[in-house]
Amino acid sequence: MSQFSLHPGDTIGILGGGQLARMLSTAAARLGLKTHIYAPEENSPAFQVSDAHTIAAYEDEKALERFAERVSVVTYEFENVPAPTAAFLQARVPVHPGSNALHVSQDRLTEKTFLTQEAGTPTAPFAKVDSQQQLEEALAAFQGKGVLKTRRFGYDGKGQLMLRKPEDAKGAFAKLGNQPAILEGLIDFTAELSVITARAVGGQVLSYEAARNLHENHILKSSTVPAGLSKTIREEARRIAESISTSLGYIGVLGVELFLVEGDTGPHLLVNEIAPRVHNSGHWTEDAAFTSQFEQHMRAVAGWPLGSTQRTHDVTMENLLGDEAQSYRKVLATANARLTLYGKAEVRTGRKMGHVNHLHPLGNLE
Amino acid sequence: MSQFSLHPGDTIGILGGGQLARMLSTAAARLGLKTHIYAPEENSPAFQVSDAHTIAAYEDEKALERFAERVSVVTYEFENVPAPTAAFLQARVPVHPGSNALHVSQDRLTEKTFLTQEAGTPTAPFAKVDSQQQLEEALAAFQGKGVLKTRRFGYDGKGQLMLRKPEDAKGAFAKLGNQPAILEGLIDFTAELSVITARAVGGQVLSYEAARNLHENHILKSSTVPAGLSKTIREEARRIAESISTSLGYIGVLGVELFLVEGDTGPHLLVNEIAPRVHNSGHWTEDAAFTSQFEQHMRAVAGWPLGSTQRTHDVTMENLLGDEAQSYRKVLATANARLTLYGKAEVRTGRKMGHVNHLHPLGNLE
Repeated sequence: MSQFSLHPGDTIGILGGGQLARMLSTAAARLGLKTHIYAPEENSPAFQVSDAHTIAAYEDEKALERFAERVSVVTYEFENVPAPTAAFLQARVPVHPGSNALHVSQDRLTEKTFLTQEAGTPTAPFAKVDSQQQLEEALAAFQGKGVLKTRRFGYDGKGQLMLRKPEDAKGAFAKLGNQPAILEGLIDFTAELSVITARAVGGQVLSYEAARNLHENHILKSSTVPAGLSKTIREEARRIAESISTSLGYIGVLGVELFLVEGDTGPHLLVNEIAPRVHNSGHWTEDAAFTSQFEQHMRAVAGWPLGSTQRTHDVTMENLLGDEAQSYRKVLATANARLTLYGKAEVRTGRKMGHVNHLHPLGNLE
Repeated sequence: MSQFSLHPGDTIGILGGGQLARMLSTAAARLGLKTHIYAPEENSPAFQVSDAHTIAAYEDEKALERFAERVSVVTYEFENVPAPTAAFLQARVPVHPGSNALHVSQDRLTEKTFLTQEAGTPTAPFAKVDSQQQLEEALAAFQGKGVLKTRRFGYDGKGQLMLRKPEDAKGAFAKLGNQPAILEGLIDFTAELSVITARAVGGQVLSYEAARNLHENHILKSSTVPAGLSKTIREEARRIAESISTSLGYIGVLGVELFLVEGDTGPHLLVNEIAPRVHNSGHWTEDAAFTSQFEQHMRAVAGWPLGSTQRTHDVTMENLLGDEAQSYRKVLATANARLTLYGKAEVRTGRKMGHVNHLHPLGNLE
């Protein structure tokens, strides 16, 4: 049986029209592939660089039907694609990554359970919390400290509460809206890392070197590669990411966020969360690796061979949030800075408007 | 007076919808700029990655009027933009590069005259030929050898005749359609080179390192950088390109093709021709320079600062002509090869379908 594989000129459907879809779309174009963006929001940034677009709700089966007829494969830029939408499409056209990746990553409890029990990867201790009482029982088991998170729809720090003192716990479950939640043990990490890994149709797996990430107000501020890690930790990070991807039978680019922890027996890694898509902490690959994560995802989704993940520069990727993007002329005039702007009309505080890759010769940041 | 300068979100109009416009369009998108493609051909490759497009003849003033209203600046991907089209647009919106660049590059006699008399750059000897008699007089002055070329609309070897023997000259003027022509002296060159140079609003000038080009059947086959030249010749190539650009008061990327000649007093350069646009021999910059020629052109046309032209790899760019593009899977599986396909539906013999940049560490090809 011949494997699934697109031809140049074929169309990749993308759910979501933000900056990730935009960068996927230009990467696809470079490979001679067309894109069709499906998003509910008018003026979505990805429309500007795609061959076709559909503005419709993710629940609009008529629009989904027409979309499925016009594309050879479907992918997405966000993990909260409604399960019925994914199922509807998957009955008509290949969807990569598959619905199990969505199922796992849409629910923090399912995700943690999968990571620890199926992928065999370590995470922070966690407990299911469906009531204030369960919360208090779990807290007791976690020495009174933890992060309470809704199981679904949390991002950039939304839908979570830090609990450090007994008072913090009072009414905490109600504060998050009495939603199914998870308590995670507090991790005293020394660094936040991420690995971008890709898996092709047929099982080829390739990872990029781990990045060291800095967050401000729960939003990614910068990613630096090399991350200043020992070879053992770098290899461990890669092994964890690839074992997750392989356990999922995954196709496409996967982002894996990790905590570096100084344990009694030396440093080790815990998985924080996974994202079944290209990832903000992988934007450095656009300018400092042979193949960008966007091209890599398009290759995998098209059923094509993966590209080299070799790094060509040392790099720090810096997000431009809100009106930080106003500084674009200064960035343009900086010799080693590579600018990307996302084409968003409206500037909002904290909104990701673009990013800059600051490039240095290899070996410079080590 | 403040200088002309776009804002992110503004729209650049591009005349022509081929691969050059396509690559300009994705480069613009990266900078947060939109593009509107104007081309007569349905299914033009650039439509697939642009925010808007117009399918209309270059003589359609109604369509040009609407186009001009919707863009902040106009540029083009080919030098044969009809003069009335450029004039019509220029009366409504800035056109970069300006109409003098089109005027000069559309006519080989005007171009050679400009190069030698205004830019002060050396070319092959040339003579105006408006009749068979003038051709024979000119040939006599050129020791009986030369290349007869129509003054207008020649490309990829079309519209020219090589004259080496007296028989070649017989009826040659009629063979080229009795059109205004130019006879160029035969040059015994040792290499064909090109320099891609850029000039910004305000006069900032930056050039890329010269490439060594190989042609087959008058069509570019490959470009290699470094070109294996002495520092003197590299600097001379840069100086020539920049002096042409400055003499034209040029804005945007300019391609300058040169012959390397072994003279009695050592090697020197002659200008072959210029192209007021991004150039096939500059496609290597997409993967082997800090800023690609496409981004550089968009920066210049937008009134933005130029980006660094520093080279990051040794590179050979190889054109994929006709069905050579069928080998895309092999290219995708080659670690140091970077593929670009142009999204053209129809394969024709000799048609430019894509290109590959073969990358090597700096210093590897020297």
